[in-house]
Amino acid sequence: MADLDSVLACLDLNLDRSVGRLSDLLRIPSISTDPAYAAECQRAAEYLAGDLAAIGFQAAVRETPGHPMVVAHHDGPEGAPHVLFYGHYDVQPVDPIEEWTSPPFEPEIHEMSDGSRRIVARGSADDKGQLMTFVEACRAFKAETGGLPCKVTIFLEGEEESGSPSLVPFLEANKAELSADVALVCDTNMWDRQTPAISTGLRGLVGEEVVIKAANRDLHSGYYGGAARNPIHVLTTILGEMHDADGRVTIPGFYDGVGEVPEEVLKSWEDLGLSEAEFLGSVGLKTPAGEKGRTVLEQTWSRPTAEVNGISGGYTGKGFKTVIPAEAFAKVSFRLVFDQDPDKIRAAFRKFVEDRLPDDCTVEFHPHGGSGAIQLPFDSPWLEKTRAALSDEWPKPAVMIGMGGSIPVVGEFKSRLGMESLLVGFGLGDDAIHSPNEKYEMTSFQKGQRSWARILAALGR
Amino acid sequence: MADLDSVLACLDLNLDRSVGRLSDLLRIPSISTDPAYAAECQRAAEYLAGDLAAIGFQAAVRETPGHPMVVAHHDGPEGAPHVLFYGHYDVQPVDPIEEWTSPPFEPEIHEMSDGSRRIVARGSADDKGQLMTFVEACRAFKAETGGLPCKVTIFLEGEEESGSPSLVPFLEANKAELSADVALVCDTNMWDRQTPAISTGLRGLVGEEVVIKAANRDLHSGYYGGAARNPIHVLTTILGEMHDADGRVTIPGFYDGVGEVPEEVLKSWEDLGLSEAEFLGSVGLKTPAGEKGRTVLEQTWSRPTAEVNGISGGYTGKGFKTVIPAEAFAKVSFRLVFDQDPDKIRAAFRKFVEDRLPDDCTVEFHPHGGSGAIQLPFDSPWLEKTRAALSDEWPKPAVMIGMGGSIPVVGEFKSRLGMESLLVGFGLGDDAIHSPNEKYEMTSFQKGQRSWARILAALGR
Repeated sequence: MADLDSVLACLDLNLDRSVGRLSDLLRIPSISTDPAYAAECQRAAEYLAGDLAAIGFQAAVRETPGHPMVVAHHDGPEGAPHVLFYGHYDVQPVDPIEEWTSPPFEPEIHEMSDGSRRIVARGSADDKGQLMTFVEACRAFKAETGGLPCKVTIFLEGEEESGSPSLVPFLEANKAELSADVALVCDTNMWDRQTPAISTGLRGLVGEEVVIKAANRDLHSGYYGGAARNPIHVLTTILGEMHDADGRVTIPGFYDGVGEVPEEVLKSWEDLGLSEAEFLGSVGLKTPAGEKGRTVLEQTWSRPTAEVNGISGGYTGKGFKTVIPAEAFAKVSFRLVFDQDPDKIRAAFRKFVEDRLPDDCTVEFHPHGGSGAIQLPFDSPWLEKTRAALSDEWPKPAVMIGMGGSIPVVGEFKSRLGMESLLVGFGLGDDAIHSPNEKYEMTSFQKGQRSWARILAALGR
Repeated sequence: MADLDSVLACLDLNLDRSVGRLSDLLRIPSISTDPAYAAECQRAAEYLAGDLAAIGFQAAVRETPGHPMVVAHHDGPEGAPHVLFYGHYDVQPVDPIEEWTSPPFEPEIHEMSDGSRRIVARGSADDKGQLMTFVEACRAFKAETGGLPCKVTIFLEGEEESGSPSLVPFLEANKAELSADVALVCDTNMWDRQTPAISTGLRGLVGEEVVIKAANRDLHSGYYGGAARNPIHVLTTILGEMHDADGRVTIPGFYDGVGEVPEEVLKSWEDLGLSEAEFLGSVGLKTPAGEKGRTVLEQTWSRPTAEVNGISGGYTGKGFKTVIPAEAFAKVSFRLVFDQDPDKIRAAFRKFVEDRLPDDCTVEFHPHGGSGAIQLPFDSPWLEKTRAALSDEWPKPAVMIGMGGSIPVVGEFKSRLGMESLLVGFGLGDDAIHSPNEKYEMTSFQKGQRSWARILAALGR
């Protein structure tokens, strides 16, 4: 603990210098989606590899068909675990540029009326500021103790904002090198300014486009209406039966593999005090539409969904055309939780549709994606140590939360490297990532560094 | 009857001359939808007014803001009924011109391998050939008897193929002049080559666009899925409940005013021998999708429908976007029969939707059109006389059929002039109206003239 105390003190002492280093990184406009900035992505990768080498990592810029990866290794004590830290150095474009109050690649410290300070620049929160919290923690450990409490691999991507086309090939080609005991992913938010969060569940996703066809051409509804099958009716009837009156999905077998969140975790979610009014009010809603008897956090974090994301058929222009269309289609997606099997869900949905298909209709399915949920075991030792470390740092204890959406890299770590991920981040909901005037709170940056120091110490123990 | 026999003989004797007159009319390219042909429409009107005046009508070309009308009057015997004959002199465009085997405005007589002859030209069947059958019947009556058996008004429109914008104002402005005891409308088909038909029922039409709205913006289905109301689900659920398993519409009150077709008429429909396989097979279907226990002819002629003509919501482009849209809409139309009230049907549908609207949703309705059905009373004396006259002329007795679609002018005659219409025409299903190589059978033209002579004689008796 003497070691950790001196590391924490070192971090505080060097805060201004760490802000300077982050600012140097933020000045590099590493916009991955725009080919005009390819050289800047390269420069950001080289900057980071150089900085990590200066700390004492074996660091290299690793070329890919797209933007390069940065991979850096550092040994740890005998018997200590091996952790892999993931972040990304690429950033979103800056449009609409006219809405920025300061130039996006000239980082500024803004002091707010409540005394808080923030670093304003594109990438400050997503993800340069976040990844530097970890780098700074490592730097301070090296400075104060000459080593790191764990064996550490740092893996930084440059294509996260443009679909990560090189990620899977790179993971496959470097499986052994990148496989660690656990991954630390710093691309998520805190629950609120006082409360750190660990995302322990990420919902999976299965997409299916379903096309219903009937007559061999569009028909006049005067001549054929009443006798000819209307594929829009078939589609609406089937999709209308996909949920019962209590909001549950009616597809047989849909809930196979759906686990329950432990009572104490549910209690901690309740303690977060998020009202339905607050969650839904911001988008103009007030009543949870999902499974009855579940809170909105359960509905979005730990319960599966069947959602029609798009539907189309017949005449949809101005005015009317009294047509019975030859076909209609819908795009349906399923958010999966716990151990739901994407392939089984896809098959069950197809059977559900086929079982309801009337005479004279055919159906086509076009699959789109398919990834299972990520669920960190609630009794994982990594989780418990991380939670305790975070709770030591922040005013309120850390909470284990779910995430309704997906972070693809976490799924790839799991499926390709067999590696669980601890998702810990210090972003806040108002950081305006992907928007003008992106910012990262100075408290996030400072206490984020201290949090990683505590976590590394805890995991190494 | 002696009079009628001589009129029929006169028609047969002068067939070639009548073909010549029709050909003169067919040579005028009176395409109403293309402003470049406005002078040709005027010329066709003048040709017809001149021809009717030559027969002995008081005929005039009547200007409108669009193409002119032709109105011609001829007295009848004391106590004889007053009939109004409706037709239209304008024609469809000729595209694709390269598919015509002879120039569309140079009428030709083609002799087929079975010995039948046809007049090939744009407008031969729709509607110049048909309207001239009536004119020739009048000409022969005048030539043989010096008069007509009924008081006759001939009313010819020049905008039928371009939405009839001047029709309603003209009817309103000339109500008294155009009101007769019954209208004769010659713009329909025979049942088959041997069997003449009288269309006694035309379904009405009510359109409603329904828009369901929920959140104040499109939502990410990862963050909000399971908690936020999805307007596509609301729409599909409601529309999915609009029909029961037997194909009946479930909207309360929907069947109010729906009458039943008399047993003997149903029997005559059955005798037509139209198989479901034949009716549906041509469009790739085989099983009637409407109300169970009804034939396809009942389903399309005498039963009402609720049909979704278009639906759209969320992401409908390529690939996937996991969105919960802010809104979704559908275009729904209702085909009405007998005494169903368009306003009540519209209101009942709106209530049906509103009753099913869950929390957090709003609904908007945009009305489109609204016309009741036309149903000639099955015991109408006009109907019985016309039917007998047609049955005398053709190899098989005339049948009373329904029509699934609408002929707007018939509705306007009914609602604005209080006038029933007898729809009698001699077109055939393969006449290729609106298509290249439009034709009118010589038998249609000759026996059509003879049919009108018989009908006029019968109605005047």
